[in-house]
Amino acid sequence: MTGAARVSPLVERVLRGEVLAMARMISRVEAGADRVEDDLAELHRTGGKALVVGVTGSPGTGKSTLVAAMAAELRARGKTVGIIAVDPTSPYTGGAIMGDRIRMNALSGDDGVFIRSMATRGSLGGLARAAADAVTVLDAAGRDWVMVETVGVGQDEVDIARASHATLVISVPGLGDDVQAIKAGVLEIADIHVVNKADREGARRTAMELKGMLNLAGSRSEDSWKPPVMLTIADRGEGVPDLVGEIERFAAWQRSNGRLEERERDMAAARLRSIVTGILLDHLQHPETAADFDSTVERVRTRRIDPFTGARELIGGVMTR
Amino acid sequence: MTGAARVSPLVERVLRGEVLAMARMISRVEAGADRVEDDLAELHRTGGKALVVGVTGSPGTGKSTLVAAMAAELRARGKTVGIIAVDPTSPYTGGAIMGDRIRMNALSGDDGVFIRSMATRGSLGGLARAAADAVTVLDAAGRDWVMVETVGVGQDEVDIARASHATLVISVPGLGDDVQAIKAGVLEIADIHVVNKADREGARRTAMELKGMLNLAGSRSEDSWKPPVMLTIADRGEGVPDLVGEIERFAAWQRSNGRLEERERDMAAARLRSIVTGILLDHLQHPETAADFDSTVERVRTRRIDPFTGARELIGGVMTR
Repeated sequence: MTGAARVSPLVERVLRGEVLAMARMISRVEAGADRVEDDLAELHRTGGKALVVGVTGSPGTGKSTLVAAMAAELRARGKTVGIIAVDPTSPYTGGAIMGDRIRMNALSGDDGVFIRSMATRGSLGGLARAAADAVTVLDAAGRDWVMVETVGVGQDEVDIARASHATLVISVPGLGDDVQAIKAGVLEIADIHVVNKADREGARRTAMELKGMLNLAGSRSEDSWKPPVMLTIADRGEGVPDLVGEIERFAAWQRSNGRLEERERDMAAARLRSIVTGILLDHLQHPETAADFDSTVERVRTRRIDPFTGARELIGGVMTR
Repeated sequence: MTGAARVSPLVERVLRGEVLAMARMISRVEAGADRVEDDLAELHRTGGKALVVGVTGSPGTGKSTLVAAMAAELRARGKTVGIIAVDPTSPYTGGAIMGDRIRMNALSGDDGVFIRSMATRGSLGGLARAAADAVTVLDAAGRDWVMVETVGVGQDEVDIARASHATLVISVPGLGDDVQAIKAGVLEIADIHVVNKADREGARRTAMELKGMLNLAGSRSEDSWKPPVMLTIADRGEGVPDLVGEIERFAAWQRSNGRLEERERDMAAARLRSIVTGILLDHLQHPETAADFDSTVERVRTRRIDPFTGARELIGGVMTR
């Protein structure tokens, strides 16, 4: 079905890089519109050129400002940029939360930076799937870099940040321990560490602590990547050119030794798993199967069967249709 | 298979409420041990008596202290308690993070309070499933109350907090806007709001703001539950008896009008969906099907097929075995 479908006019417009078409396609993704998978399949086929960068960190680390500063730097280098903010604390979303939007405003008249925030709080993994689909759209639209910003808490968000060619984990000096602690399990996914707001007291110490942790983790082999710790002051753009350079260096390193392939294989695997899951959950809500689902739910609730037996029955039922 | 299995000795010991058996069973859950689903099926059958309370809120709101204070209050009322902390910032986990552990220590010699922290960062939804399974264990072991504590960020965590008879959302006065903002989408799941650290400046204002929001959301019908806003100072136990009383009032209200059934139906449905998903993902990693999966991943990576077509093929392949 998918392969044979004719390319829709909207897909063609996305492929030409039309900003309005990109926005509309992502809205279709978020809404789970009819035939949107056919469109995405088509877009997937022609994509694969963008450098996808995941950016994550605790609330208050200035991720959005940093992403904006990176976008400005990339524009100065003649690159086009797509930004997907799946961070509910991001200032791009509805009510502006953070103060510093200067840089963002400076970019706002520029079609070379496409920004979209996503906050779908739908079914399990819904947001991760939608974010991956949005990356597919921006990639196919020819954006050179696609940055995905998430708050580094919760498995979903971590998975999203990881589904990238390069993952940045942002820290700041002096953020309360309770907030920093969120990052347990997040730090380890970093290809590049950034200590933002580096003009604050304690920046060097934070950087040293990160380096210390990385050395402790040190059972890496000789040819493995050692995540660097970069210092930035995003709202002044300081350190940002170096950071962009470092990401490019990491991408080149991956390309030179086959790690890029490995990385893209991981990304494809995560994508497949999430779509498989989504298809099955959709099946359960399908009118033809919903009655089975409801009666299984009722039997589980009243403890006539256990949820494991119920789940196996449902899978059998859905799949033999 | 499941139903006919003989009850294992470990299950019997859990059913007798043995603390060590509970701990071991939860370890089996976390490890995905052989036949653990048979055990859980058995435990599910005899469960359904505990009041399950979800507690969520931003980092730094003092959730763990509050949960500990509630446990102490419940013990004073002669109730047994189980606590599952899926909050990576929780002080129960490995490295103690927060200062106030006094109350926790006061409870530590008491078998009537069982505490377990979970921090599995496994596959999609893995943590949610493990937490639900742990609830099944503690419920079957006869705990009167089972409290599940999560940091209120990320869809997974929100789903976990919601899978309960009563969901508490904790706020505090004066926490930075950037952190509070995480809660967009979390506040709405509250059956009961708690403003903790109510001795801090701004507590009344925070409570008023919450009430204001609830009134705005106001298109509730006459017979619907109006989430109250409770003030607590958890580290001194202040407001905690009232809070426990309010949860009991909510549970009684649900019981009196059939909402409890509805709630348990939602819980069973969420549980089934998550198990269905888990079974399918396990299938994909099964030795017999892993080769299919790997080759599909490779074709997606090289863009010979799109991920949607790939996912449909995989589902077909797994299910016809």
